[in-house]
Amino acid sequence: MPELRKDPILGRWVIIASERAKELDNFECPAVAPSPLKECIFCKGNEHKVFPETFSLKDERQDWRVRVVSSQDSFLQLEGEPWKKGKGPYDFINAIGSHEVIIESPDHVENMADLTEKQITDVFSTYRQRIKELEKNQDLRYVLIFKNYKKGAGGGEIKHTHSQLLATPVNLKRVKEELEGAKFYFKCHERCGFCDMIRQEVGTAQRVVLDEGGFLALVPFASRFPFEVWVMPVTHSPDFYAMSDDQTANLAKVMKKVLLKIKVLLGDPPYNYIIHTAPFRRPYPGYWSTIDEDYHWHIEIVPRLTQVAGFEWGTGFYICPSLPEEAAKYLKETKV
Amino acid sequence: MPELRKDPILGRWVIIASERAKELDNFECPAVAPSPLKECIFCKGNEHKVFPETFSLKDERQDWRVRVVSSQDSFLQLEGEPWKKGKGPYDFINAIGSHEVIIESPDHVENMADLTEKQITDVFSTYRQRIKELEKNQDLRYVLIFKNYKKGAGGGEIKHTHSQLLATPVNLKRVKEELEGAKFYFKCHERCGFCDMIRQEVGTAQRVVLDEGGFLALVPFASRFPFEVWVMPVTHSPDFYAMSDDQTANLAKVMKKVLLKIKVLLGDPPYNYIIHTAPFRRPYPGYWSTIDEDYHWHIEIVPRLTQVAGFEWGTGFYICPSLPEEAAKYLKETKV
Repeated sequence: MPELRKDPILGRWVIIASERAKELDNFECPAVAPSPLKECIFCKGNEHKVFPETFSLKDERQDWRVRVVSSQDSFLQLEGEPWKKGKGPYDFINAIGSHEVIIESPDHVENMADLTEKQITDVFSTYRQRIKELEKNQDLRYVLIFKNYKKGAGGGEIKHTHSQLLATPVNLKRVKEELEGAKFYFKCHERCGFCDMIRQEVGTAQRVVLDEGGFLALVPFASRFPFEVWVMPVTHSPDFYAMSDDQTANLAKVMKKVLLKIKVLLGDPPYNYIIHTAPFRRPYPGYWSTIDEDYHWHIEIVPRLTQVAGFEWGTGFYICPSLPEEAAKYLKETKV
Repeated sequence: MPELRKDPILGRWVIIASERAKELDNFECPAVAPSPLKECIFCKGNEHKVFPETFSLKDERQDWRVRVVSSQDSFLQLEGEPWKKGKGPYDFINAIGSHEVIIESPDHVENMADLTEKQITDVFSTYRQRIKELEKNQDLRYVLIFKNYKKGAGGGEIKHTHSQLLATPVNLKRVKEELEGAKFYFKCHERCGFCDMIRQEVGTAQRVVLDEGGFLALVPFASRFPFEVWVMPVTHSPDFYAMSDDQTANLAKVMKKVLLKIKVLLGDPPYNYIIHTAPFRRPYPGYWSTIDEDYHWHIEIVPRLTQVAGFEWGTGFYICPSLPEEAAKYLKETKV
């Protein structure tokens, strides 16, 4: 099993997956694009071509509507005794966890924006159910859900609409930072920073794209990327999976509109989204006691229009070549 | 002048540079590659084709050996009264600072590995002198120096060997995180974490690539990327620019060998390096009192062999498809 190693200064965990590519040849650059797939392995009828199903949503006739399978690239596995060890200043743990693919439709659709509202509701329901199920495994601390649409956003050869789930035995650095930022804001103001942001945005309306059904879609004040959009529940809640079914349907409506606006306005660009939700509450060091009050789940959507420029890489310092207020205006005015 | 905006939760600063691209057309994706340059504007004889010189190192005949010019892409400017303002939960400041290009040779050489040791010494001396000069400007807090070699590493159209300098009025998030990590390690152990790392690496020799002239080149224990190499002074020092001239010459020797090893072993891949050094000591909130003891400057070199995969983007969770110990062995054994 591969191991996870922690940078002793930064606390950043890395999967060391040397099984993947032991031969030096595999590091050749740049990678030559493999020839396109002849047929889509995610389409209905090709179920035998992918890894076993871990979950599915079925219709009355027992045909699947959404299907979750293990990833063929997975370095994480749910079986095995978790261990942790140290050596000098270094920490290791073994790579307990799960990497799954959510196939969002039996039919060949590529952009989630082109699924029906009902289908998108099914996808978000599936996410919620998988998180709930994985929470039972006490070795896991976080479930990350994300989508890479098209190659420019890190998507692979398979074009059929899908998203990914990564369950990890550690809290990811990005998650820890956000939690610590939220906690610090709460300590200063005794209010949730995201709720403050929502009040501010609804008040000025300068950066609001949509405000309906209890969800706000906005271009963030300090956007890293042009036309970045965050979708947030207006009512405070730390956990994505704690949504009701009605809320899930409302979220799907908003997501469909936002993704369609991006598609129409920007010419069907590659995009990523990541669900930012609270980690599982486990009694371990680093457990944040005020997480229920200070953290607020949301989805960050990033169209990939500009290449991340040189000094953005590794510096954490971004240049956004558009005014967030203008991006919001364009998106708001785009009819879908 | 463009403005800097801070994410209220994460404390991440972003340059909002809307002057760059007001037209929606500029966000079309993917960017069509511009036609290649007919002649190199960084070569000797074309000095008039770039922005004015801010510094140069000259030989006895007053010909330049290393030349620093303002970047044509700069969003930062040194002139102007610094201001800060807030609105609701949000902070803005204006974009005081400097973005400069260090042209590393009058002759057309592309990879720094192919410069002479003397030339590389000149480049590092230039970095030191520019940082010392910029430190006098009380509005600045950090100088970031980095190199993007080839397009795969974020390099632009100009192939002539050069590096970049970014002076900022805020501490970059990446820098803050590293400082906080270093401070926390020091708090736990009352020792510099980087010094501990050096002792551990010299002790086991498993990940050491080179150990000479007071500098250690190693593959870090928790490498994010295959064949990532860090070059560190063995003696504790927080500030890159505080090196002596002799140390600078020794560093140049080690850097040349490491860059040549990467070139020979991996087939001249794109790479980045970033100089990680302490920020200017300014009396402002967030000033770290133990920085002289807990922080240790170093250079991080990353060959760009694998595309950053989907879930690494935005998660801070990396998969490294090679064992750091094996990468170190390959690099160590590569003759240059």
